[in-house]
This record gives sequence, structure tokens and C-alpha cells, in this order.
Amino acid sequence: MPVRNRDLHGSAPDKCETALLIVDVINDFDFPEANQLMRYVPPLARKLAKLKKRAKRAGVPVVYVNDNFGRWRSDLHSLVEHCRKGKGREFVDLLRPDEDDYFVLKPKHSGFFESTLETLLRYLGARNLIVTGLAGNYCVLFTANDAYMRDYKLVVPSDCTASNTAAENKQALKLMKNYLKADVRPSAKIRFIRKKLRGSG
Amino acid sequence: MPVRNRDLHGSAPDKCETALLIVDVINDFDFPEANQLMRYVPPLARKLAKLKKRAKRAGVPVVYVNDNFGRWRSDLHSLVEHCRKGKGREFVDLLRPDEDDYFVLKPKHSGFFESTLETLLRYLGARNLIVTGLAGNYCVLFTANDAYMRDYKLVVPSDCTASNTAAENKQALKLMKNYLKADVRPSAKIRFIRKKLRGSG
Amino acid sequence: MPVRNRDLHGSAPDKCETALLIVDVINDFDFPEANQLMRYVPPLARKLAKLKKRAKRAGVPVVYVNDNFGRWRSDLHSLVEHCRKGKGREFVDLLRPDEDDYFVLKPKHSGFFESTLETLLRYLGARNLIVTGLAGNYCVLFTANDAYMRDYKLVVPSDCTASNTAAENKQALKLMKNYLKADVRPSAKIRFIRKKLRGSG
Amino acid sequence: MPVRNRDLHGSAPDKCETALLIVDVINDFDFPEANQLMRYVPPLARKLAKLKKRAKRAGVPVVYVNDNFGRWRSDLHSLVEHCRKGKGREFVDLLRPDEDDYFVLKPKHSGFFESTLETLLRYLGARNLIVTGLAGNYCVLFTANDAYMRDYKLVVPSDCTASNTAAENKQALKLMKNYLKADVRPSAKIRFIRKKLRGSG
Repeated sequence: MPVRNRDLHGSAPDKCETALLIVDVINDFDFPEANQLMRYVPPLARKLAKLKKRAKRAGVPVVYVNDNFGRWRSDLHSLVEHCRKGKGREFVDLLRPDEDDYFVLKPKHSGFFESTLETLLRYLGARNLIVTGLAGNYCVLFTANDAYMRDYKLVVPSDCTASNTAAENKQALKLMKNYLKADVRPSAKIRFIRKKLRGSG
Repeated sequence: MPVRNRDLHGSAPDKCETALLIVDVINDFDFPEANQLMRYVPPLARKLAKLKKRAKRAGVPVVYVNDNFGRWRSDLHSLVEHCRKGKGREFVDLLRPDEDDYFVLKPKHSGFFESTLETLLRYLGARNLIVTGLAGNYCVLFTANDAYMRDYKLVVPSDCTASNTAAENKQALKLMKNYLKADVRPSAKIRFIRKKLRGSG
Repeated sequence: MPVRNRDLHGSAPDKCETALLIVDVINDFDFPEANQLMRYVPPLARKLAKLKKRAKRAGVPVVYVNDNFGRWRSDLHSLVEHCRKGKGREFVDLLRPDEDDYFVLKPKHSGFFESTLETLLRYLGARNLIVTGLAGNYCVLFTANDAYMRDYKLVVPSDCTASNTAAENKQALKLMKNYLKADVRPSAKIRFIRKKLRGSG
Repeated sequence: MPVRNRDLHGSAPDKCETALLIVDVINDFDFPEANQLMRYVPPLARKLAKLKKRAKRAGVPVVYVNDNFGRWRSDLHSLVEHCRKGKGREFVDLLRPDEDDYFVLKPKHSGFFESTLETLLRYLGARNLIVTGLAGNYCVLFTANDAYMRDYKLVVPSDCTASNTAAENKQALKLMKNYLKADVRPSAKIRFIRKKLRGSG
């Protein structure tokens, strides 16, 4: 589809065929199974922070796709502060969005549902999506499903998603590999080369 | 359509058949025709502030539907501060969103396009929309078109929109009245009664 | 969300809180794994035909949600005739849409993506969806995901979907049960009572 | 946005940067103002038939975007036959879709709302849309609005739309010219050159 202006009136100043999506990591972990999920969060956070750093060095835009907390006010600052008060503070601090990251709020599971994600990615020029975050078998899976239906090529690094149980996460990765043709190599095997995503193989 | 939980996980804590939409008033007025448009802004701002006050007293939720300025970061605070540096500062200050208002970012002209507005209104239970703001013949009209297509009943108070010229604003109101069956009575004639919208006639 | 006219200008003459969705059964079975899938089709067709009959007797509208074959022309007749020439003729004949069934074309996996399904269901007044058809782990699953995100209550009768392997179908049912809160009782246990769906307890 | 397969599994076998949209001409003219509108239909039909012929000769795909009549069944044949029984028979016969035209059903005013149009155009590769048909100030205008918001370049030939009154049609054309940057030259001035649209100027 065409784009009318270069950068969506300043909203999408970058251009890259690949984008890194980070799903629901800014989180207050205030839900019944949070303790289960949090067992897997520290190693995920470290891997994801490293992947994000490498992506940014290669010029790949980072797009947070996140649930809202509290009244819908598109208020990033309050949202981060709210989540920093939860039990995932360390995690939130490690992964909090930088000034040059994008941040898209989503009202439901999939990042594409009733959000600006699709328009933003179109203006960024993205065709390949690296999808990461929480939970691997829920919002990551729903987002990946919708990305696949919109014809994006998918990379879902196996060590950058987590679910309530290791078995559920593994199953979700398998689904995305088999049904969505996602590349699920571990994050360290992703090579970023000059704004292009290339396989390591 | 059904709603799964009462309040969209806290994002939509109110319930009301009517909602007041305020389009693009948080604005930096940094575009070619801004001086033209700004001639109409001070009286609009006063009327709209008054209408908003009355709506809130009646329990009608106020939903800002607004363009983004700068990189897409869902950052209400930065957005307001950016606009306060523009030539519409007084206007922005008069109409800045309160803590209990909703704020929805839109990437394009219509508030319904690739935004959370539709889901939010569904959870609020809104069926009647009072649409106000800038510009009457552009984003207000596009938003009203989309609202009509989604079967909302429309009120577009004639003194709460402005366009670059008075003629264009009048034409837009006429279009919305004739084609979208909008009630275009002036704002003072809107009566709010206990969370229900009633005509003054 | 509101509806402006009773029946979407004649397109949705029924009213019912429940609708039966039948996904991709009008099929030419012209794809690599078709022979695998077809092993499961005859018993599915019989169960589904029976369920459809019971649904219609109870006044529950039947909505086919189907892929297109050939140039996009919204041409039901040609589509059915094309599929009758394939190896699923018997199946197509058993399940071909009646004059009083609905038929929605979908361009991709989910029945909700870029189709009229959502608007149609809104006008029908449906809140509960019985989702059936092919393939259980693909288009049925994608459609169920999207239905869940839109807050419909789901019934996915375990004997009315099929996938390329029994294991994949079982896994898909388990996912829908666990993640989408779908009721997966077998079709014979669904009780239709006067336009309302009730569990069999 | 990317496309996964060449032709949407056979649904979109053509490739062209321009598409000709024909809105709501397959019509039963069974509404209160039909007699008003029909005064303008015969000349429109002749112009449009000629434009369509030239477009097809140049390899430009023709996409009907049309309301449904009767229960939603995606049944092109019944739809055309229904409309041939109305008072616009001659018109319908002149403009009935050929075997190699596309036909998209829409449930509401805009051709983009809850329809397959956007996906189809993406697969066709269209960036320029020639929008024609009925009524100029309603479904044509709504469709053009949505096309503009999606960044298509618009041509709305001034002699290929009609509204209930000449004044309304003229006003709609003026709106599309001024607000949507549409080229509104008369159809004879559109030059098709080898699958590319070029201005005559």
C-alpha cells in the first residue's frame, strides 16, 4: 500500500525493512499466574535487552506493543511508573523504552487489533518482524498470528518469549514455527546487517 | 457486540450511553493555514470548555481523539508540552485533558481508523456521540462519517467545531446534518440529564 | 455497538444470540495435504450436517465463512460448482448452503479479517458462536482467536472440526479450550432451546 | 505492506498500479429518491461503460464495489438478477460485471469498511484509484475518503458519478478535489498508457 508522506507526519521517522516488536514487557505483573510467569522473566529480560541493543545499533526500529494499565489515556509516563511499583520493577527498568523507541498501546491481545501498529509498520517500511515478549502463548502468539495474516515474515527468537510454563512456551514456539513459518532461532543467532535482517545459517 | 469484562481491564471504568469526543484540540498549530484557523479558536475553546464541564457534571465521559506530534510514543505528557510551546498555548491550557478524561491517539484523519476508539466506546457503552473540535471539515467530518457508518447517533454542536473558513465550517455542518443525520444544535441547547442525552426541543 | 436499521437493509433478516459458523467446508481440496485432511472429512460432514439441521430448527442462523476460489467475484454459484468438481464433491453436496443460510467470503485465514462477518454478526445480535469446519488448527483456530478478542463466547464442538492429523486437531481444541475458554463438548451435547444456546450440564 | 503469494491464491490474478472502482451501479433503485437519481443515470452509464472499456484495454483491473440486496450470501448471480427486475434494468445490463472483473460486496457506505477491498487492492498492487458510480455524495464520497486516508491517489472523473441533485454531485466533486486532492477531470481526459495512469495535461 502507498504512503502519502515520508514519515506519517513525524510519527515514523525511521525506515527499515525489519522491526523489533516487544510485547507486554512493561507490566505490573498483577494477575493470578504472575508468579509462575516471573520465574522466566529475568533471563528473558537479559536476552531481550541484548537483542534490543544489537537491533538499535543496526538501525532496526524498536516498537513496544503494550497493554494499557488504568484509564486509557495514552500516558506512557504514568504507565511505566505504575509498572515500576509492581513486582517486576527490575525488569521494567531494564527494558523501559528509550526516547527513540516507538510505543503502541493495544486494547486486546493482538498488537494489530484496533491499534496503530499496522499503519506505523507501513510507514516504517517493515516487512520482517522480530516478535518478542510476554506471554509467548497469548499476546505474542496472537500478534504473530495477525502479522502472518498480513503477510509479514516472522522471526520469534526462542529465548525472547516466556509463558506461564516452559511447556506452554515451547508449544507456542512450535505453533509459530509450523503454522506461521516463523524462524525461531535463538536471539544470538540473529544477524543484523546494515538495516537488513539476515539468517545466520 | 458483547464485552468480556466490565471495564476493558480498567481502561474504560465509566458506563454511559453518550460520550463527548474532542478532536485534535491539543495541537501545535504548526501548519500552513494555522493562522486562518486560529481566528476561530478562542470562542470555540470557551464554548467547548463549558460543554465539557457540563458533560462531566452529568457523568458523560470525555474522550480526546487526537493526532500525534513527534515519534509515536503514546506519550500524553510530551505531546501536551510540545503543543503548549506552539501558538495555541492558551487554548491548549484551557482544554487540556483532566485525569479522568480519556485520550486516544489517531494516526490519520478519522478517529476510528486504526485506533482504540471503537473498542473503548463499546466498553463505555456509548451509542450517542457528541463530536467537537478541529477541523470541522476534516478530522471532525471524517470521524463523524466513520461514526455514522458504525451506527452511532451524532450530535455535532454548531459552535464547537471550526475550520479554516467560516464557509467551510458551515458546509461541513450541513453535510453532517443532511447526510449523517447529525443534530447540529448549538452547544448551549444540549441538555444532559442523568447520563442520558436528551434534546432541548 | 448500536445498529441503525433492523436488518442491515435486508442482509441480516434474523435475530439470534447464537450463530453457527461453518468454516471452509466448501472446498476444492486441491492442496498438498488434502488427502491427509480428507480422511477425517466424511464423519465430520455427517456430524456437521446434523448439527446444522438442529441449529436451523431452533432458529439459529447458519453463517458459512469461506475462502474464495478463483478471481474474487463474490460468486457463490461458481464457487460451489468449482468445488463440486474437486475430490470433495460428496462432502460439498452434503453441506452446501441453503437459501436461508448466510455466506461470507474471507480473503485470509480468520473469518473476521477484512470481511463482513463482524458487521453481520452485530446485526444478527449474536454473542455466542459455535465454530466448526476446516482446518481445526488453521482457519477455525484463527477465526476463534479473533472471535475471542471481540468478546464472543465460543463453542467449538470437538467432533465438528478436522485437521491434517488427529493430533493437530486435538491440540487446536485444547488451545481453544484453555486460552479462548471455548466449550468443546461434542456436537450431540449442544442443546438448542428456543433461539438460546444452553449447555447440556 | 508485503504480499505473501503472488495473487492471493488466485483471487487477484492481475497486477496494476491503477484500478477502476465502480460503486453501487448494480442497483435495484428501490429507495425514496431513486427517481431523482435516475435522471442522471443514462448519461453516466454510457460514459462509465466507455471508461471501463478503455481501462480494460489498457490492462487496468475493474473492481465493482457494491451493496448487497437480500440476505448476505455473496451471490453475484442472484444480486444481478434481482437488480435487473428493478427500474434500472437497462443500466444494469450495460454495466454488468464481466467474467474478468472483480466484485466486492460492502455492508455499508464505504467500500473499505469491513470488506475485502483493501486486501484485494494490495495484491493487485494498486496505488491509484479511479472512483466512479453512485451516489457521488454518499458511497462514492465515503469510499474516496477512506481511500485517501489509506494514501491512495484519487481520480474521480466528474462525469462518472451522479447524486440525487446536480448541485449535490458538484459539491461532492468539489470536496473530493479540495480535501482529498482528487483529480476530477472528465473521463475522456483520462489517458491509460500501458498499465500506467497518466494525466492528459
